[in-house]
Amino acid sequence: MSTTAGPVDVDALRARLDRATAAASTAGLDALLIAPGSDLRYLIGAGGASFERLTCLVLPVGGTPLLVVPKLEHPGYADVPTDALGVDVATWVDGEDPYALVKKALKGTRHAVSDMMPALHNLRLKDVVGGEQVLAGPVLRELRMRKDAAEVAALRKAGAAIDRVHARMAEWLRPGRTEREVGADIAAAIVAEGHVLAEFVIVGSGPNGASPHHDVSDRVIEHGDVVVVDIGGPVAEGYNSDSTRTYAVGEPREPDVWETYAVLQAAQRAAVEAVRPGVTCAAVDAAAREVIAAAGFGDRFVHRTGHGIGLDVHEEPYIVDGNDLPLEPGMAFSVEPGIYLPGRWGARIEDIVIATADGAESVNNRPHELVVLPA
Amino acid sequence: MSTTAGPVDVDALRARLDRATAAASTAGLDALLIAPGSDLRYLIGAGGASFERLTCLVLPVGGTPLLVVPKLEHPGYADVPTDALGVDVATWVDGEDPYALVKKALKGTRHAVSDMMPALHNLRLKDVVGGEQVLAGPVLRELRMRKDAAEVAALRKAGAAIDRVHARMAEWLRPGRTEREVGADIAAAIVAEGHVLAEFVIVGSGPNGASPHHDVSDRVIEHGDVVVVDIGGPVAEGYNSDSTRTYAVGEPREPDVWETYAVLQAAQRAAVEAVRPGVTCAAVDAAAREVIAAAGFGDRFVHRTGHGIGLDVHEEPYIVDGNDLPLEPGMAFSVEPGIYLPGRWGARIEDIVIATADGAESVNNRPHELVVLPA
Repeated sequence: MSTTAGPVDVDALRARLDRATAAASTAGLDALLIAPGSDLRYLIGAGGASFERLTCLVLPVGGTPLLVVPKLEHPGYADVPTDALGVDVATWVDGEDPYALVKKALKGTRHAVSDMMPALHNLRLKDVVGGEQVLAGPVLRELRMRKDAAEVAALRKAGAAIDRVHARMAEWLRPGRTEREVGADIAAAIVAEGHVLAEFVIVGSGPNGASPHHDVSDRVIEHGDVVVVDIGGPVAEGYNSDSTRTYAVGEPREPDVWETYAVLQAAQRAAVEAVRPGVTCAAVDAAAREVIAAAGFGDRFVHRTGHGIGLDVHEEPYIVDGNDLPLEPGMAFSVEPGIYLPGRWGARIEDIVIATADGAESVNNRPHELVVLPA
Repeated sequence: MSTTAGPVDVDALRARLDRATAAASTAGLDALLIAPGSDLRYLIGAGGASFERLTCLVLPVGGTPLLVVPKLEHPGYADVPTDALGVDVATWVDGEDPYALVKKALKGTRHAVSDMMPALHNLRLKDVVGGEQVLAGPVLRELRMRKDAAEVAALRKAGAAIDRVHARMAEWLRPGRTEREVGADIAAAIVAEGHVLAEFVIVGSGPNGASPHHDVSDRVIEHGDVVVVDIGGPVAEGYNSDSTRTYAVGEPREPDVWETYAVLQAAQRAAVEAVRPGVTCAAVDAAAREVIAAAGFGDRFVHRTGHGIGLDVHEEPYIVDGNDLPLEPGMAFSVEPGIYLPGRWGARIEDIVIATADGAESVNNRPHELVVLPA
């Protein structure tokens, strides 16, 4: 099914198209070729959904943008103001060659394809267009990782919606229920509280909490379990929520929970407090990591501190060692350190924050303390 | 979230891996490189779900299969019997180079990438591996389009589940409700009747039925509307349902509905009756098209007659003009002609059929007649 935009301002879209083409030119490219997905949604307000039939937005440097789309799928782009955006449309039907339509719109052969374009299409485009093919990601991320006011507003809306779900956790998270049962209730609440869909639901109870990417299982939650709940999804505008809180179902069973959790809480706070313009992504990662390492848990924090978020749940900038990108106002990303004790329990605290002129605004505002639920 | 398999027989998986490698060798390839998605699920029983971190099953001709997977996402493959399958596993963490792990497992450079691999990964693999890069689709589709007994059983299960949803249509499809409201009820029923999720829900009422890829809208359904309902999704085994029926909400308003619908019904029947081993996909398409054209609606049937189905909703073989592939027992595909009268109404009838030794078995068995619902 097509994923059309919420109403995105036409002027904002036109400015994005212009900036993308300008950035392509600066990068020495002749064109950007954008497949369905979040890049397409960012540029024209509709992300499309096709796979085997080619849909491609052609952005030639010094030429007119062209949306190549299967005639059957054209109605999915009905809300795109192509005239106002100055985008031509070329539809095609089964039996015609859509790659030739793309080639015809190009003035040169050095082209970039969007990172999500399936090999099915980018290999054929490489053959038909000839010339050099590179990734469009490096060009587009310069635009997408700097959120404008409307994008920030959508992230705040998503953050508030997922906060409302976390606020209701006591309704579902109880001893005797499986992670899967709890997860199904949470998924329904994610939609009920204002998301388009529940993109992911992690309920990691007891030892499962020590596996950061566990989703749900048939494990029955027990009195005294520590439970990691990491949830999110897109709101109508397409922007995503993503927030983790760690709960105890009754007084925690393991003796080291309170002390260890306090380390995690301090680490998460330290990372958020490190955020300001000019500070590198790596420095924010280090701020969390140093607190955890100093307490002796360095080898128990097994992932990066965060990821950018927007139309994709994971996008630039990544808050990871080695990323020397300096933060700028409008960059949005998660701050989510964790401590994982294999076979026993784990904990993570995750907020989405937006870099401001002098610090960070968190779009998530639930308490950071370990919440002990009635059990 | 990861999409693990239902229990797939280990011997069946091992045979698929062997056949895939043998087919790669026959095609003159040194290796297949398979990204998360239905190809991966077909080969190892788990489809994965990662995007920006590389997961890749390396199938070297004359070597040991290797699953390269981010350490964080490794738990999502816990159900894969890697030892029994003879698959080595190499995990990697942020900061390491997964592409180098792939290269190390290769004995030659002529490699094929799965059709769904994002450009983000296939362009980097091309750089790191060097040599020639082609699509794995032509190799894998030879395997995937011939369903084994377990796959046929899963398609039957999916077909029966979606038939149960169509059987309940009178509960939801009534005058005064919007397509979106009806669609939400249908989506819930798709899950309730045995699917993992509602992959797509098309409710095309009145003039919207004339747009084949319309999904749902806020149009209020009226007494006398003809409504196209095209729905489906995967069952636990990963195999998809996909069935369309056309309903009238009370006696149809437009005067030409009964006569035109009879043409469509005859066309769908003619196409199913054309199915047998040795007949080409194009001939099945032609069987439906000729009936519709003979009645003067040739230009109102604006899409191919069908598509293969299995772990993907759309896969080989495509039932389309120009496809000279001869059918074989075990091939599964939709037969779904439609007639679309722009601005007025449309109709489509779709069953999934499986080619047998002497004809076709339909996994969908709801009546083909235009069903007039109480209104």
